This record gives sequence, C-alpha cells and structure tokens, in this order.
Amino acid sequence: MSGRRRRQGGSAARRAAVANAQIVHHPEIKRGIPLMEVTNQEGVELIHDFAMRVAEQIGCDFQDEETLGYWRQTGAEIDGERVRIGRDELLDLIGKIPSSYLHHAHNPERTVRVGDGQAVVSPSYGAPFVRDLEGLRRYATLADLDNLQKLNHMAPTVHIAGGTIVEPVDVPVPHRHLHMAYSGLKYSDKPIMGNVTARERAKDTLDMLKIVFGEDFAANNTVTTSLINANSPLVWDQTMLDSLKVYALNNQAVMCSPFSMAAASTPASNVGTVGVVLAEALMAMALTQIIRPGAPMLFGVPAMTVALNSGAPVHGSPDSAMVQFLSNAMARHYRLPHRAILNVATSKSGDMQAAYDSMWGLFPSMLSGAD
Amino acid sequence: MSGRRRRQGGSAARRAAVANAQIVHHPEIKRGIPLMEVTNQEGVELIHDFAMRVAEQIGCDFQDEETLGYWRQTGAEIDGERVRIGRDELLDLIGKIPSSYLHHAHNPERTVRVGDGQAVVSPSYGAPFVRDLEGLRRYATLADLDNLQKLNHMAPTVHIAGGTIVEPVDVPVPHRHLHMAYSGLKYSDKPIMGNVTARERAKDTLDMLKIVFGEDFAANNTVTTSLINANSPLVWDQTMLDSLKVYALNNQAVMCSPFSMAAASTPASNVGTVGVVLAEALMAMALTQIIRPGAPMLFGVPAMTVALNSGAPVHGSPDSAMVQFLSNAMARHYRLPHRAILNVATSKSGDMQAAYDSMWGLFPSMLSGAD
Repeated sequence: MSGRRRRQGGSAARRAAVANAQIVHHPEIKRGIPLMEVTNQEGVELIHDFAMRVAEQIGCDFQDEETLGYWRQTGAEIDGERVRIGRDELLDLIGKIPSSYLHHAHNPERTVRVGDGQAVVSPSYGAPFVRDLEGLRRYATLADLDNLQKLNHMAPTVHIAGGTIVEPVDVPVPHRHLHMAYSGLKYSDKPIMGNVTARERAKDTLDMLKIVFGEDFAANNTVTTSLINANSPLVWDQTMLDSLKVYALNNQAVMCSPFSMAAASTPASNVGTVGVVLAEALMAMALTQIIRPGAPMLFGVPAMTVALNSGAPVHGSPDSAMVQFLSNAMARHYRLPHRAILNVATSKSGDMQAAYDSMWGLFPSMLSGAD
Repeated sequence: MSGRRRRQGGSAARRAAVANAQIVHHPEIKRGIPLMEVTNQEGVELIHDFAMRVAEQIGCDFQDEETLGYWRQTGAEIDGERVRIGRDELLDLIGKIPSSYLHHAHNPERTVRVGDGQAVVSPSYGAPFVRDLEGLRRYATLADLDNLQKLNHMAPTVHIAGGTIVEPVDVPVPHRHLHMAYSGLKYSDKPIMGNVTARERAKDTLDMLKIVFGEDFAANNTVTTSLINANSPLVWDQTMLDSLKVYALNNQAVMCSPFSMAAASTPASNVGTVGVVLAEALMAMALTQIIRPGAPMLFGVPAMTVALNSGAPVHGSPDSAMVQFLSNAMARHYRLPHRAILNVATSKSGDMQAAYDSMWGLFPSMLSGAD
C-alpha cells in the first residue's frame, strides 16, 4: 500500500470514526471533594429559627382559595390570604419530601436521580432573547428552541432537556406550551421540564407526557420537574399555585424557588434574605405534602441582588454567592433536594463580565453541593 | 437660596469631594469563612511522605558550587550536583522559617503582614506584552511600567507594588533592573518586589532599598519579597540560586516557586505534581535556613498544566485548581506562608475565556487560604 493510499485510508477512517462516534453522556456528578461551608451548625440553627419565626409569626400570603382549603386541613392559622403555621407541623410536612427522586426520561438511559448530594446540569431557563450567529440580539423563536434542544440532546455534560430554554415568542401564548413540550420530547431524549404559566397548561404538559410515557407510568413516576417562583416577600400567587397543585397532585417534582432580589424584595442582608426565602419555600413545599404526601419537591433560591442605583437585578455578586452557600447549607439541614443557578450574568453580551458573573454562580453552587 | 443655586452648590460640593477624596487602602484580607479542603489529614500525610521520599531518594540538582558548599554543612548526601537529604534534617530546617513576616513599605502605613492565613494581593508579574488603549498588543516599555505602578499605588485592594508587572524592553538589560526598582519606589508607596535575574542585580536592588529605608533598617527588616522558579523537574539553576542566596543572607523574603507544567515538567497527576514541586520547594527553602536561619520564605506553585497537543502552558484548568487546593493544604501542614496565582489566563485577549480562566485561579486560591 502506497503512502498516499495509506493517508487516504487514514483520513477516510477518521471521517468514518467521527460520523460513527458515540456521544458518551455523563452520569450524575458525584462529589469527590468535601463541601465548602461558610457557616457552622450554630449558624444553620440560627437561620432555621429565623425562618420558623417568619412562618409562625408573619406567615405567607397564598392568593388562591383552593390552596387555603388545603391549609384548613392543618392547624395553620388563616387570616384572609395570610397563612401562619407552627414549626412542628411545618417540619412534619417537610419531612415527607424525599431527599432524592428519579426524574424519568423517555429514554430510560437518560433518567437521572436528583438529590442526595449528586448534581445534574440543566440548560438555561427563561431567556426572552437570543444572540444569533450574525451577532444580532433578537426575540427567540420556536426554531431557536428546537435548535437549543438539539444541542442539549448532544451535550454529554447536560442531563436535563430543560423547558423554557428560550421563550419562543413567534408561537401564540395559548398553544405555545404545547409546542415547547413537543420540542423537548421530539429533539431530546433527556428529562424535560413542565409549563407553569396556567393550570390548564400544566395539565396539558402532563397529558402530553402520558402519551409518551404511558398513562400508568406517568401516574406512578416523576416524568417532569417544573419551576415556580414566589413573589417575594411572602406572596405565592394564584398562577404559580395552580401549577404547583397540578404537579404535586400528580407526583411531579417542582422547584419552589422564591424569586428574591436582595435589598428590594427581601432584606439587604444575606442572612435575612435566606431566612425569608426559606420561610416562603418551606411553606409552599409543605403545602404540596398536604396535597400529596411524598411528592418530590426541590428547594432553591436564584439568589439575585439589586443594583440600588437602577433597581435592575444583579447576577454574579459576592452576595449572591453567599446566599447560595447558605441556602445549600439549609437545604442539607432539611434533607431537601436543592436547585441552584450556575451560569447567569448581569452582562448583556458574551464578554469578560459575563464570564466573571457566571463563575460567581458556578463555583459557589458546585462547591456548596447543589443538586 | 434658589433651587438653581442649590443645585450648583451641590454639584460644586460633589466635585470638591471627588477631588479631595482619600483613597482608603484595605488592610490584609482576614478570612471570615472556613477554608475549603479537598483532602483530609490522611491525604496530606500521604503527599508529605511522597515529597519526603523524593527529597531522600531522588533529590534535587543544585547547579551552583557555593550552594553545594552550604549543603556540605549538613548531613545531606551530595553526588555531583544532586543533593539528597533525610526528612528529619529537612523538616528541622523548614521549621526555622517564620509562619508570617512583615513586608515593609517605605510608607509604613502600607507595610503588610504576609502569612498566618491572611491574604495580600499583588499585581501581575512577568508580562512581556501590554495591550494599550488603542487595542494594540505590543512589547511593554518603562512608561507602561510607570503607569501600572501609579495605578497600583491608587488601587485600594492591591497591597503590593509588585516588581516585574511588565518587562520594560526599551531599557537595556544590564541596567533595566535599576529602572524597575526605581519605578516601584517612585510611583508607589507600597512594598516592592526584587530583581532575580542575576546575583549583582539582586544586590543592586538591595542597595537601592538601603538608600530608601536606611542601611540599618534594611539590614534588620524584610523590605522586599522576590520570586524564584525551579526548573522542574528537580533542578535549581545558578541564576536563581545566586539571587536566592543574596536575599536569604540579607533576611529578605523569597517565594520558592517551582515553575511546574503538569504532564510535561512534572507528573500528569495532580497529586504527583504537588509531591514533586513540594520536594523542590522545601529543599530550596531548607537551603535558605542554612544560609540564614529565620529568613522569611514562601512556598508556592504556579500550578500550570500543559496542552498536550501543542505543549503550551495552560492556565485556569480544573487541574490547576486542584494543585492549588492541595499545595495550600501542604503549606498549612508545614506552617509556611504560601503564594498562589489568582488571575491568569490562557486566552491572549480580554475575552470570556480570559475571565473563565482567571476565576479558575481566583476561587481555588482564595477559598483554600493562600497568603
């Protein structure tokens, strides 16, 4: 065989190897190093006590009559929409939440265990804009979402297909959620996230998942994880509660994530912020255990601060990092699965600041053991 | 007073306040959070034992006859330039190094304590290029160094004036070091770093410092901290040793920093790299304690890896981070002051990658307690 033919053979073989290459998807990240702690057990107990006093003495607004009906099944004190609950009963309810759960994918090989100290990675969530290959920043479309789902499907270090990776504004709102769920199910074989923008949209998402997984399987297993936000301070609105009820009733996981903006919607101090959002999240999670004991739920704080000169949310500050460390420590205290924000930036473009901001989320989240 | 006059008064007052503003320089950074550890005491003991076996059984080359003369005053085994030393004697010598020291500035208010777990921040070191305000990447000049010294002088979070912030290539080598020391002493009132490129240049630096501090003060106090690198694996060359001897003899601090490029000059494994560079650094530091017991010295590993496809050094990799965590843990084990690299990047421009790379140095160094 001549040198020339050998080279051709090598090149063809390399092309074939690339074409046939199998993507080796990573399993859940298991920690090989100790957790980074910024406080000790005494600090954890103090924050716990603060959160309990908020739940007992101040309480949270639940702006939904059906939800208040659930609370009436407990010893909670209800005053209009305001609900207060004693710490013993609150902790009893929280104790029913499993410390981890399987988030099933329609490809069983992509099913992941969420919680118990191992980490799974999910794509971004909720971006209204994309920057395309020509550098143009514009509203996202369904074609963008499809492309991002394809990329996530191929990414070996991403475990979750995600949900609202971008908001596809070219699809009318009333049936947008159907196309979004379809995008995740068609272009990715990883576990998907559900819609939370209305009760019937959450139900539609579940109905689509039943088609894919089968009615029986979907009824008895967790096939989606969704995200709801409290309107901090101390308000859960009807839209979020409607979706939470649908998913909880069907044994589907929900991240109960106060959308805190420290110094605006929660106290300016990091410890104060953690205490308030902890009370908010624990009360919503306790509610789900009245509806369906044992339904999987996640605690989580996006941990933003506010630029006091503009009112804009700030990602990637040292304060956000501290809130992340503390809220992870609190999640472990209650043995709750915990979501964190890894890579978000205040910067509007892909510049140095965006990377600095992102790393201020990534390091604290990973080092403090987010799930 | 009219509204207009009040506004003018406010504006003038603000201008005056800016003009008269005092820069409040930060003292040394004192840790308020626990250290991040990636290994336990057993891991530290294993790495220690590995380093001791390297020093005892393999040894290090010291390419300088005068240095070998110092070693002959000990029980070290000398074979050509190769020096091997038993762990008991090595640790005896290392034990004479203070766990912290005062690095004096010519403005006493800027004097800092280095070591004992508090951190001081130094500017960059050794950059051959600058990128100017027009975006041009070019060789650095003395004017650049002067400007950077002025900026560091003003920066409230930078504790050290630095030394070779950039290499001013417009000044001929034989008297470049004089201009560099002058730049630091003239344009900054913070502690400066010394020249190490030849024995007489180290002496010249000291002579200049004696003019500024006074002969007596400079003889009895540490007025400069310098940086020397081992040629890993296991070689200390004459140039570096000449400078080390000058500074040690005069009670001046030196960072004994193996220039390791893991997978090229040291083992590819992180633990292997730490073990080898530890042996190199401890032997150089032990040498200084033969020359002048009690002279302040710092351990430190730049912790680079190598891109195996190009041979280029890589900054900001997870492996570098792991070496940083481990070498900080080892420094604490020996109660030695420890330098680390905070913000270095493989990227050649100020882009996202540069920021990601930098943060892979900053977080591990700060969280693992570098001095």
